[in-house]
Amino acid sequence: MSLDREEPNYFGAGPAQLPTNVLQQAAKDLINFQGLGIGAGEISHRSAAGVGIVNHTKEYLRKLWQIPVTHEVFFLQGGGTTGFSSIPTNLSAAFAKKSGKKGRPAYVITGSWSKKACEEAERLGFDSQVVVNAKTADGKFGDIPDVDKWTIPVAEDTPYVYYCDNETVHGVEFQEFPYEKFPGVEIVADMSSNFLSKPVDFSKYGLVFGGAQKNVGIAGVTIYIIKKSLLDYPSVKELRKLDIPITPIAFDYPTVISKDSAYNTIPTFAVHIIELVLENLIKKGGIEIQQQENVKKSDLLYSTLEKYPTFYHLPVTKRARSRMNVVFTIKDGSLDAEFLKEASDVKLTGLKGHRSVGGMRASLYNAVTLPSVQLLADFVDKFAKAHQ
Amino acid sequence: MSLDREEPNYFGAGPAQLPTNVLQQAAKDLINFQGLGIGAGEISHRSAAGVGIVNHTKEYLRKLWQIPVTHEVFFLQGGGTTGFSSIPTNLSAAFAKKSGKKGRPAYVITGSWSKKACEEAERLGFDSQVVVNAKTADGKFGDIPDVDKWTIPVAEDTPYVYYCDNETVHGVEFQEFPYEKFPGVEIVADMSSNFLSKPVDFSKYGLVFGGAQKNVGIAGVTIYIIKKSLLDYPSVKELRKLDIPITPIAFDYPTVISKDSAYNTIPTFAVHIIELVLENLIKKGGIEIQQQENVKKSDLLYSTLEKYPTFYHLPVTKRARSRMNVVFTIKDGSLDAEFLKEASDVKLTGLKGHRSVGGMRASLYNAVTLPSVQLLADFVDKFAKAHQ
Repeated sequence: MSLDREEPNYFGAGPAQLPTNVLQQAAKDLINFQGLGIGAGEISHRSAAGVGIVNHTKEYLRKLWQIPVTHEVFFLQGGGTTGFSSIPTNLSAAFAKKSGKKGRPAYVITGSWSKKACEEAERLGFDSQVVVNAKTADGKFGDIPDVDKWTIPVAEDTPYVYYCDNETVHGVEFQEFPYEKFPGVEIVADMSSNFLSKPVDFSKYGLVFGGAQKNVGIAGVTIYIIKKSLLDYPSVKELRKLDIPITPIAFDYPTVISKDSAYNTIPTFAVHIIELVLENLIKKGGIEIQQQENVKKSDLLYSTLEKYPTFYHLPVTKRARSRMNVVFTIKDGSLDAEFLKEASDVKLTGLKGHRSVGGMRASLYNAVTLPSVQLLADFVDKFAKAHQ
Repeated sequence: MSLDREEPNYFGAGPAQLPTNVLQQAAKDLINFQGLGIGAGEISHRSAAGVGIVNHTKEYLRKLWQIPVTHEVFFLQGGGTTGFSSIPTNLSAAFAKKSGKKGRPAYVITGSWSKKACEEAERLGFDSQVVVNAKTADGKFGDIPDVDKWTIPVAEDTPYVYYCDNETVHGVEFQEFPYEKFPGVEIVADMSSNFLSKPVDFSKYGLVFGGAQKNVGIAGVTIYIIKKSLLDYPSVKELRKLDIPITPIAFDYPTVISKDSAYNTIPTFAVHIIELVLENLIKKGGIEIQQQENVKKSDLLYSTLEKYPTFYHLPVTKRARSRMNVVFTIKDGSLDAEFLKEASDVKLTGLKGHRSVGGMRASLYNAVTLPSVQLLADFVDKFAKAHQ
């Protein structure tokens, strides 16, 4: 029974391509894990092997991303969307413990994901403060407005300021968040689509979270990195008095952390895939090496697209361009289908843009190799020459 | 690269053994799914292949379990524990739409899982009605008290009555729930640990749910089967007025159903494993065949244990004994470790009882074969003869 495959050139936005050697190991482990006679999806999450998977994954992540002892790492199910719900309730509880009040969470909106996060907080009964909405400021998503246009919230009233470090749909990524504008406010970042793609200074963050299914695994696990000082909450009774919604128990951060991410049955096999991806990244040389590769990949593609300014259009302002999701359109929109068809003919797949943006999107996550991007760049080049 | 394994005899309570042929197919599909060149964990949940996995799984389940058109099937992440939170908020919303009030959910408590479900509803701010608590009635869990000892709630006040059809920890299973005692009340059953183990008359139920990781898959997916008439809710504003907590958006049943279980990224690979398990069960002959096998397996083990009444103890009353989780202890408790060691020596594993009950527990889920149970029964026999 063969577990071989031709190396894919898949540029999907997530779930996304994973290293073939990782999947081959995972496939074997699905049948028989560590010689136990049963697979990694069958072992108990309370067994030594099951607990080992969680612990190794945490250790590897701490090591790779230099996560300081001030921060805790844990896993939840439900994806980033569940984070949109659990972040306001959990972080407002921590804020209430310190301040005695509910406060108003602040949101920086630079694309559809941060917008959704803000809307969910409001739906749950939080009165959010919008720091900036790039769509209102610029008429469309595609830039990060200058900080002098932002409305900075008052720290005493603000449990946290939330932003999305990389907007997958719109291809907008922060080069660096203006931390210094928010003294005394906890900073929360959704890094779902640039998770582990670059070094991060965690001392700046109250919370960083990301779904696994872009850079580090398959769908079904979300990784959270939280400042330990944010884990002390008032009682449920007190929270109710302050009109702070009670978090469902499986998403109550202190509860989950107290049970090493296994308050309820953890998806062990999906965590094991993350473990293997991280192990692979350590062997490859670590986060700086990966970042250099990511820079090379995106530079190559952006510079190729820029060679044909009358043919291709790059809707994102240069300073806000994502290293992970390269969004581009063909000025003659009628050529989109032809582009995708010809690309697919040479086995370059997953390039169709998000339905809300149109055109093309090439996601260059960690597992997408430089040779793959070279093939895509060559195709981009050839297609422009043939059709311009 | 070999994907073979010796057939396991694993009796763990969940995650649990799965059919080897299912795992072998899943392993191949993890690398390359349907010749697409990428695996089932890498494809987009919005692609034809990804949507196909969800649709086939729903179709197979409908077919196998004869789910009527009055009911909808959908998938969530988070396991049964997330159901403990999402059921009171969702079903109370449906109840409020019809009655204009919040009501008080009713709970039948026959073991630790139904107890946890009731506690979570209370934690979220619901004033629950306890129909019966077997522990209070009998001093311990291990029986289902006679229905004449139950306090039957008033239908006009009761959004639903909740029970756990099979208590995994205590090995207590309903032969048949007394539906007729609750006219006009929606009945909700947690079937996590006897999911698809027997036919079910869904016309009796408002909602049936179960985590995949016992009978039908790996951890990370929970399956819900809900009556369509329970999907109409008042506005968030009206819910707030009635003091009904707002459900996090990824667990709002009408929202999830409106997006075919993919409101947010669904764990496609974990759903695919369910798809393969169901396909396998269809090939095997369906639910009645599986039920007959399950009856044979549990009869064999219980009758073997009963042959040694001075040596083994069966803590669960005969009428409430689970077909899925056979709980037993050795009267001389000092022999437990020896039993587990000798069993492990002959490759019978996963037999340790839950920490809260002690002794042994043999989980005889669908994938555990009759020959495996025969081996276990022979061992039970031999061990008693050697040590009594």
